[in-house]
Amino acid sequence: MSAYQLLVTVQVIDEEVAKLLELKAQLGGDDGKQTFVLKTAKGTRDYNPKQMAIREKVFNTIVSCFKRHGAETIDTPVFELKETLTGKYGEDSKLIYDLKDQGGELLSLRYDLTVPFARYLAMNKITNIKRYHIAKVYRRDNPAMTRGRYREFYQCDFDIAGQYDPMIPDAECLKIVYEILSELDLGDFHIKVNDRRILDGMFAVCGVPDEKFRTICSTVDKLDKMLWEDVKNEMVKEKGLTEEAADQIGEYVSMQGGMDLAERLLHDPKLSQSKQACAGLTDMKQLFSYLQLFQITDKVVFDLSLARGLDYYTGVIYEAVLCQTLQAPTPAPAEQNGAVSGEEGGVSVGSVAGGGRYDGLVGMFDPKGRKVPCVGVSIGIERIFSIMEQKAELSAEKVRTTETQVLVASAQKNLLEERLRLTAELWNAGIKAELLYKKNPKLLTQLQHCEETGIPLVAILGEQELKDGVVKVRNVATREEVRKASQKRGWGNVCSAVEKIL
Amino acid sequence: MSAYQLLVTVQVIDEEVAKLLELKAQLGGDDGKQTFVLKTAKGTRDYNPKQMAIREKVFNTIVSCFKRHGAETIDTPVFELKETLTGKYGEDSKLIYDLKDQGGELLSLRYDLTVPFARYLAMNKITNIKRYHIAKVYRRDNPAMTRGRYREFYQCDFDIAGQYDPMIPDAECLKIVYEILSELDLGDFHIKVNDRRILDGMFAVCGVPDEKFRTICSTVDKLDKMLWEDVKNEMVKEKGLTEEAADQIGEYVSMQGGMDLAERLLHDPKLSQSKQACAGLTDMKQLFSYLQLFQITDKVVFDLSLARGLDYYTGVIYEAVLCQTLQAPTPAPAEQNGAVSGEEGGVSVGSVAGGGRYDGLVGMFDPKGRKVPCVGVSIGIERIFSIMEQKAELSAEKVRTTETQVLVASAQKNLLEERLRLTAELWNAGIKAELLYKKNPKLLTQLQHCEETGIPLVAILGEQELKDGVVKVRNVATREEVRKASQKRGWGNVCSAVEKIL
Repeated sequence: MSAYQLLVTVQVIDEEVAKLLELKAQLGGDDGKQTFVLKTAKGTRDYNPKQMAIREKVFNTIVSCFKRHGAETIDTPVFELKETLTGKYGEDSKLIYDLKDQGGELLSLRYDLTVPFARYLAMNKITNIKRYHIAKVYRRDNPAMTRGRYREFYQCDFDIAGQYDPMIPDAECLKIVYEILSELDLGDFHIKVNDRRILDGMFAVCGVPDEKFRTICSTVDKLDKMLWEDVKNEMVKEKGLTEEAADQIGEYVSMQGGMDLAERLLHDPKLSQSKQACAGLTDMKQLFSYLQLFQITDKVVFDLSLARGLDYYTGVIYEAVLCQTLQAPTPAPAEQNGAVSGEEGGVSVGSVAGGGRYDGLVGMFDPKGRKVPCVGVSIGIERIFSIMEQKAELSAEKVRTTETQVLVASAQKNLLEERLRLTAELWNAGIKAELLYKKNPKLLTQLQHCEETGIPLVAILGEQELKDGVVKVRNVATREEVRKASQKRGWGNVCSAVEKIL
Repeated sequence: MSAYQLLVTVQVIDEEVAKLLELKAQLGGDDGKQTFVLKTAKGTRDYNPKQMAIREKVFNTIVSCFKRHGAETIDTPVFELKETLTGKYGEDSKLIYDLKDQGGELLSLRYDLTVPFARYLAMNKITNIKRYHIAKVYRRDNPAMTRGRYREFYQCDFDIAGQYDPMIPDAECLKIVYEILSELDLGDFHIKVNDRRILDGMFAVCGVPDEKFRTICSTVDKLDKMLWEDVKNEMVKEKGLTEEAADQIGEYVSMQGGMDLAERLLHDPKLSQSKQACAGLTDMKQLFSYLQLFQITDKVVFDLSLARGLDYYTGVIYEAVLCQTLQAPTPAPAEQNGAVSGEEGGVSVGSVAGGGRYDGLVGMFDPKGRKVPCVGVSIGIERIFSIMEQKAELSAEKVRTTETQVLVASAQKNLLEERLRLTAELWNAGIKAELLYKKNPKLLTQLQHCEETGIPLVAILGEQELKDGVVKVRNVATREEVRKASQKRGWGNVCSAVEKIL
C-alpha cells in the first residue's frame, strides 16, 4: 500500500467514524445523555501546520508571479447581499450558502471571486485594474473530499480589466499560467486555448440552432472526460441535434494546432462564412504571435474541443492540464459526470488553471450597463495543494513547520536565566530562536526537539563554557561543534557566529 | 478640516447614501421597478489596493515576529457546527451569525479564533503547540465603522499550549507584544499586567461574595474608560456591594508598579491571607524576573485595575495601550459603555493587544475533560490598520500598491513586439516589469503611468537605439538616463543593468 493510498484509506475511515459518531450523538449516546461531536462542518477541514507550510510555499510562488506582472490585490467580504449573487450562476445557485435571516439584510457566502470582483468594479466605477485575489469560496456541493474537493476552498484569481488593444492582456494571462506551473514544478503541462466566438461560429455553420449554442457548448466541454461517441449521443439523443450537424462538429473539435491551424481555418470554406469565427480566428493568430514573443508556444495548443463550463465567457478561453498526474486515483466516470460545472467544480482531472475573457459581467452590475472588458485566470490551487501534499508524503525530505534556526539549550541545571538572556539577544538580532519552556530540560530532550522539528543549530550553554566566556554552537545533523564564540558584555559574538553559519 | 476628518465625513456620507438607496430600492425605485443596490453587506467593507498594501506590510511585520519565536500556523474553517460555539461567549452569543438551515448540519460563522483553536486541540488530541492564526471573524454587532469597528474583522492570535514551568511562555507572549509594537512604530506604549488570581484574592479579602466575582470584575474592567466614582457607583448601586468593600477595592485597584509592588503585596496584611492572591503574586514576581532578562520592564506595569472582559482567563492577563493616539476622534462614553466585551470588541481606545492565560477552555471540548493549559495574545490588528491608514493619509509619501520596478516603454510607434520581448526577458530574470497594453502608447502617457504608480525606472526603446544595440534606462524621479546597456542576442545586459540600478 502506497503512502498515498494509506492516506486516502485513513481519510475514508475518519469520515466513516465521524458519520457514526454523529449518528450516535443523534441517538443520544451510550447512556442517553447528549454526546458532543468534535468535528468540523461537513466538507470543511482544518489545515494543520504541515499543510499550512505547503500552502504558504505555493502561495509565495504564485503571489511573486502576480507581483512580477505588476498586479495589485484587493479583498472583499466573505458574504455578499444575496441579490448580488442572484442570477449569476444559473442552476448552480442552489449550491449557494445563505445566512439565516436574523433581521436586516439577506446575505449569502461568496460562491466565487469573479462576481464580487465585478461588483467591486461597478460599485467603485473602476474601469482599469490588474488585480489578484486569493480567498476562500463556498459551495454546498456534495464534496468528494478524498479527491480534494471541499465545500470551503481557495480560489486564486488574476484578472485584467480595461479597454486595451486586442490580445495583449490575454497573452499575459497565459504567460502567467506558464510561469506559475513551471515554477511549481508539477511536471509537464500544456495549455489549451480556444475562443467562444470560434465555437459559436462553428455551431452556426454546422447548423446548430442559436438557442442551443450554450447547451451544445456544455456537451462539447465534456470531451476531456467522455469519448466522442458518448458526446455525440448526448447531442443527438438528449439535445435533439441532427446526426449530420453532430458529425460536422465532431470533425472540427478533433482539430488541434497552433497559429497554422488558425490560418488554415480562416480559409476553411465553411467556417470562414461566419464573421464571429473569423474575428476569433484573427485574434487567435494575433495571440499566438504574442505567445511567440513570450517564447511559450511550446506548451500552448489551439484546441477546438475546449469549451469551458461558465456561460459568461465572450472571447478567448484557456485551460492548463497536467500531462501526467502523480498517484492520484482515477475517479469513476459516473462521479465525474455528476460533477458541478464551474471554475473549480468542473475542472477535470489534471486541470490546474483556467480562465478566459468575459466582457459582459461588470455591465450586469452597472446601473447604466456600462461594460468593462475583463480577462482573467483562476489557478486551481486546491488541486495544486493536494499534488504538493502527495509529493511531500512520498518524499524522504521532512516538511518543516517552523523556521527556527537555533535552539538555545543547556547541558547542566540552573541555566534557565542564561538561556533566556541569550534567546532574547538572538531574537533582537533577528535570528529565529527557541528554547524549551522548562527550568531544567535534559540535553537529550533538547537535541531530540531539534531533530523532530528540523532546527539546524543548537547553542549549548554549560557552566565551564560560561566561565571561559564561550558558547558551543553545534550543527544538529553532523553533530560537529562548528564554532565557539567568545562572550563579552552580551552575546553579540554568538549572534554573529550563528548568522555566519546560517 | 484634516485629512482624517475628511475621511470620516466621506464615510458617514457614503453610509447615509447607502441607507437611502436601500430604502429607495425597498420602495421600488423611481419608476416602480426594482433598483439593484450596489453595496457590501452592513458592517463589512472591501479593501482597496492601498489598504491591502498597508495590511500586507503590517502582517509581514507580525508574522516575522511569530516565526522568529518558532511558531507554526494553522487554519480552521470560517464556519463551525453551531454547538461548538454554544455556551462559550455568554450573553454575546446573540451576536453570532448563523447559517440558514438548508438541510444537514446547523452552522455558525466563527466568533473568534480561540474557541476554534481549543476545538482543534481537543479534536486532534494535541497537548503541545505554539501556533499563530490570522483570519477573519464575524459578529452581528452594531458597528461604528467610522471608528474602525466592523462586523467582519481580522483577528491575529498567537498562543502557546502545553504544560510548562510557570511564567516562561507567559513572558514570551509579552516579549512578542513588545517586539511587534516597537517594530510597527506606533508611538510610545505600555503593557499592563495583572493576574485573575490576584483579582479574585483581592475580591475575597475585600468581602465580595464569591458569586459576584465575575460581575465585579467586569465593573473593574471599565476603569480605563470611567472615573472611579462611577465605577464605585456601579458596584454599590447596581451590583449591591457594600460601600466599605468598594472602597477597599478602590485602594487596591489604584496601585501600579513592578516587581517591588508584587513583593510588597505579598506582605500586605489583608491580601496575603488569600492563597490565590499569593500564588498570583509569586508568579508575578517570577514573570518580572523573566521580563528583566528580556530587558522589557521599561514598558510593563503591574496594574491591579486591569481585569479584561472575557470569563475564561485563569491566570496572568495583559493589555498593551498606546500612550497617545494619533488624530482618532474621542468616542462618546455612552457608546463605549455599550461596547461589546470580548477580545476585539471590548478593547478600549488606545488598546492594541491583549491576552492572558486560559487553562480551562480546551477541557470544555475534551470528552474526558482533560485540560491543556494555554496562554496567548491577540494583536488588535484592525485598530493598527486604521492607525497605519491615518498615518499614510497624513504622510507626504505615497503608498505604492504594486511593486513594479521597470516600465518597458517606447518613444516611437510600431515597437510593441520589442516591448513585449524585453518585458518577457525581464520577467524571466525575476524583475518586476510592466508595459502598457496599447500598440502605440504616447511616451508621455507611459511616463505618467510611472509617476502615478511609483515605478522607479523606465526602459525606453527607440528605433535608433535598437539599431545601435542600446536601451535607455531612465530614473523616473530624477529624469537622469542612468545607463545605456548594449543589446546582443536578447536583453541579458539590460536585465543585469536594471538589477544593478535597483
